[in-house]
Amino acid sequence: MLFTSEQRLDDGVLEREFTLGEIPGILWTPTSASAPASASAPVPLILLGHPPLGLRKMYPRLVARARRSAAEGFATATIELPGSGDRPRWPAAEQARADLRRAMDAGGPVSDEIVDALALPLVEKAVPEWQATLDALLSLPEIGGPVGYSGGVISIGIRLAVVEPRIVAAGLFAGSLVPRAIFEEAQQITIPLHVLLQWDDEGNDRQAALDLFDAFGSKEKSLHANMGGHTGVPQFAAEAAAQFFTRHLK
Amino acid sequence: MLFTSEQRLDDGVLEREFTLGEIPGILWTPTSASAPASASAPVPLILLGHPPLGLRKMYPRLVARARRSAAEGFATATIELPGSGDRPRWPAAEQARADLRRAMDAGGPVSDEIVDALALPLVEKAVPEWQATLDALLSLPEIGGPVGYSGGVISIGIRLAVVEPRIVAAGLFAGSLVPRAIFEEAQQITIPLHVLLQWDDEGNDRQAALDLFDAFGSKEKSLHANMGGHTGVPQFAAEAAAQFFTRHLK
Repeated sequence: MLFTSEQRLDDGVLEREFTLGEIPGILWTPTSASAPASASAPVPLILLGHPPLGLRKMYPRLVARARRSAAEGFATATIELPGSGDRPRWPAAEQARADLRRAMDAGGPVSDEIVDALALPLVEKAVPEWQATLDALLSLPEIGGPVGYSGGVISIGIRLAVVEPRIVAAGLFAGSLVPRAIFEEAQQITIPLHVLLQWDDEGNDRQAALDLFDAFGSKEKSLHANMGGHTGVPQFAAEAAAQFFTRHLK
Repeated sequence: MLFTSEQRLDDGVLEREFTLGEIPGILWTPTSASAPASASAPVPLILLGHPPLGLRKMYPRLVARARRSAAEGFATATIELPGSGDRPRWPAAEQARADLRRAMDAGGPVSDEIVDALALPLVEKAVPEWQATLDALLSLPEIGGPVGYSGGVISIGIRLAVVEPRIVAAGLFAGSLVPRAIFEEAQQITIPLHVLLQWDDEGNDRQAALDLFDAFGSKEKSLHANMGGHTGVPQFAAEAAAQFFTRHLK
């Protein structure tokens, strides 16, 4: 893990860009200026998941989540997903995205084949990268644990929750474009889950999202459904998600 | 409104039993001992709804909710529902309850006729009583406003939210035994709603509860679904409901 830049945000949070091999990422850590109570000891970590739109495009929303988490005494980190930002595309993913757009523009259902082609290779590539990032982050003296995963892509969050024992709680953004194979893995999850559902999400099928929530194997799982579209998560819902992590990572 | 008894609970909350005509009720108010910041000025009020099992049976759960609300600076009040506790039964309600038990024991669906017979007369009787109670409570110097309604019976909460403009926010406990007429009224609700759904509620149909949530007309409505049966609401869900009222009544 190589730090390539470092800046202190106006609220005292330390933002460092890094590369891990060919993967760019960002690490945010609280400092004595941003969270006086918790900055001296190693802090818990939240991995910030996000849709595959590129870190640069996602930065404003990611840094807002990072600042809120830092104020609660959490470090946060994110990485560029394979095939996003400046990372090399692969043809099958481009094809799958085009197929998805066509299916959604036509208002028709999205076939299992498209969902599989879209999500399965992404999960297969991204999950080991998140795990390698976790190895590197947990070797830093300022990062302790425990570790949570927060956000999309929900299929990546599901796989990580199943295969990565260092992740002890996950806040997931409900989605419906989940391959059947991943849906079945969801039943194996046992860690506490906090699931956000936007009731009128234009990109997701509500019933499929509810079925997925029902399938999660966790004994503690909460669904928070709020009005509005995909990007319309209300402020109070973000606060409730933060409280979930405070309950489980502190 | 006649106060018939008064005691100070160990956390400083003042508990007063009252009667309003033939209706018994309980009022809890914060004092300088229980909520130093807010006890000097008139405080907001939360009406505590509950299932028709009788105030005496419901007391432990009600007083727990009252104490939590008092700690946040809210007064709370509840009344005995018509046909519950020591209040006179009416034969049609007894018949409807027996029919419901029979239908549920048989594992079959509960007919619209049973639901209507169970809920409609209760709503017709209880809602004006809640309104008269509200008149009396708001005339007390220590109670200001705004006013919220919290809890079951959901059909009563829906009707109150539609007809009583002094209620500005409602926290409802999702139920499925809702008459069609009340379901249609739900679309007229415009106040912020916070709906608790117990995912494995043995007495409620989950899909009907989700359909009802979808029908509410409010622009701000949140569904918090948690694992467990009817009485298994987790502590953190109660806290989230309390935060909802703090957002809207303070």
